[in-house]
Amino acid sequence: MTDTFRRVAIIGDASFYVGPPLARSLAIRGHDHVLGDPAPELVAELESAAATVVAVEGVRSLATREHCDALVAAALERFGRIDAATMASGRVVTGRFLNSTLDDLQAVVRGCLESPYHFLQAVLPTMVEQRSGQVLIMTSASAARPTPGAPLYSAVRAGATHLVRNVADEMARYRVCVNAVGTNFMDFPEFLRASGATDPEVRKKVEAQVPLRRLGTLDEFASFCMPYLDGTSTFVTGTFVPFAGGWA
Amino acid sequence: MTDTFRRVAIIGDASFYVGPPLARSLAIRGHDHVLGDPAPELVAELESAAATVVAVEGVRSLATREHCDALVAAALERFGRIDAATMASGRVVTGRFLNSTLDDLQAVVRGCLESPYHFLQAVLPTMVEQRSGQVLIMTSASAARPTPGAPLYSAVRAGATHLVRNVADEMARYRVCVNAVGTNFMDFPEFLRASGATDPEVRKKVEAQVPLRRLGTLDEFASFCMPYLDGTSTFVTGTFVPFAGGWA
Repeated sequence: MTDTFRRVAIIGDASFYVGPPLARSLAIRGHDHVLGDPAPELVAELESAAATVVAVEGVRSLATREHCDALVAAALERFGRIDAATMASGRVVTGRFLNSTLDDLQAVVRGCLESPYHFLQAVLPTMVEQRSGQVLIMTSASAARPTPGAPLYSAVRAGATHLVRNVADEMARYRVCVNAVGTNFMDFPEFLRASGATDPEVRKKVEAQVPLRRLGTLDEFASFCMPYLDGTSTFVTGTFVPFAGGWA
Repeated sequence: MTDTFRRVAIIGDASFYVGPPLARSLAIRGHDHVLGDPAPELVAELESAAATVVAVEGVRSLATREHCDALVAAALERFGRIDAATMASGRVVTGRFLNSTLDDLQAVVRGCLESPYHFLQAVLPTMVEQRSGQVLIMTSASAARPTPGAPLYSAVRAGATHLVRNVADEMARYRVCVNAVGTNFMDFPEFLRASGATDPEVRKKVEAQVPLRRLGTLDEFASFCMPYLDGTSTFVTGTFVPFAGGWA
């Protein structure tokens, strides 16, 4: 890269899941940040790593378009540009298909499809104008295969993932890269609670479902995401990788 | 990683394509090397970056099992372990399907399928014994879609890519990760010659076929490959990513 400016990253939800390790890894790689709802300790840590950080509060649900717009407005006001943008979304509904309701489906659509829709709508116009930018949408490894016990979730994740690929196709002429990655079996509190793996015996059974026989860490997932965000590798677009220990 | 040793990488062909930038990127990340047929200048550069380098000469064609075995033997003799192993293969045959011969098919099978077969056969037993390791096989973005003018090549690349995914499934229980990536439209001498893009007018036409409207660089491809090789992210296996500017 011949850039003389510092790169600017938006992380949609910096309080949760891979948000904090992504922020740390991008700060090491010379990024300033616009963060959705970061913990004060994270902001202090990033600032001590020489990053400029703008915290945007009260934007946790990216299924609300105004929240996405607030992140973009903060980036443009403080930095005048957006080089990388990433978001995680998620509304898990489990249970058998025949036991599900239309309300269940609509809740998943709002959480897993409308969130990336709004985020993409919000961040892309600036990148189109810049003729550069990288967007990475976190969907789910369940997009890549039928997922026992979560048919609506898996289906809508597949839809969101394919939306990303279609948007990538539309954006390519502007040299804007848009990719998706999706996890399963990650070692973080919400997955442990949802799967029951807070109990060591249950955790063993959950790990046995993973071909690599363990849960993944958020730090290694953040490391995996770097080439999709950090500006070192901007010839990959429209792709999806499941990060799930070989499960998908 | 809590490793106190330096990691050891095998790069099957260090004289060509992404081999040299991969070696440089892995050296920066603390790897020692076993390199197939490296240029003396590359070895000197890596050694000045504090890497220990073992050069294995005369192993350029990895479709010969003995060449793969020589790389592994060199790694075990000098370092006693293999943490990362990567190879590129390729035997391009172009032309319409109905004009092709069985000889054409067999040449592609030898160059594009038997090479990764032998390389995987050679490097995996050590990794199984270690219960750790990362293998990245370079196939081709043509594995991901029908490729006008190269039906045999595209087909065999798809076969090789799916071999990698099957092998990943078999290896996962040993905590060995096996992935594939594949390029198209890269800016390097053989692609430029083969596509005619050494001529600036032809190059414009070739670039127009790429959604991102340019050719990719080997340095950005090497950067993309790092998480699959450098030990920072070992929860991804059995995946394939086309690195081709949105073409696949």
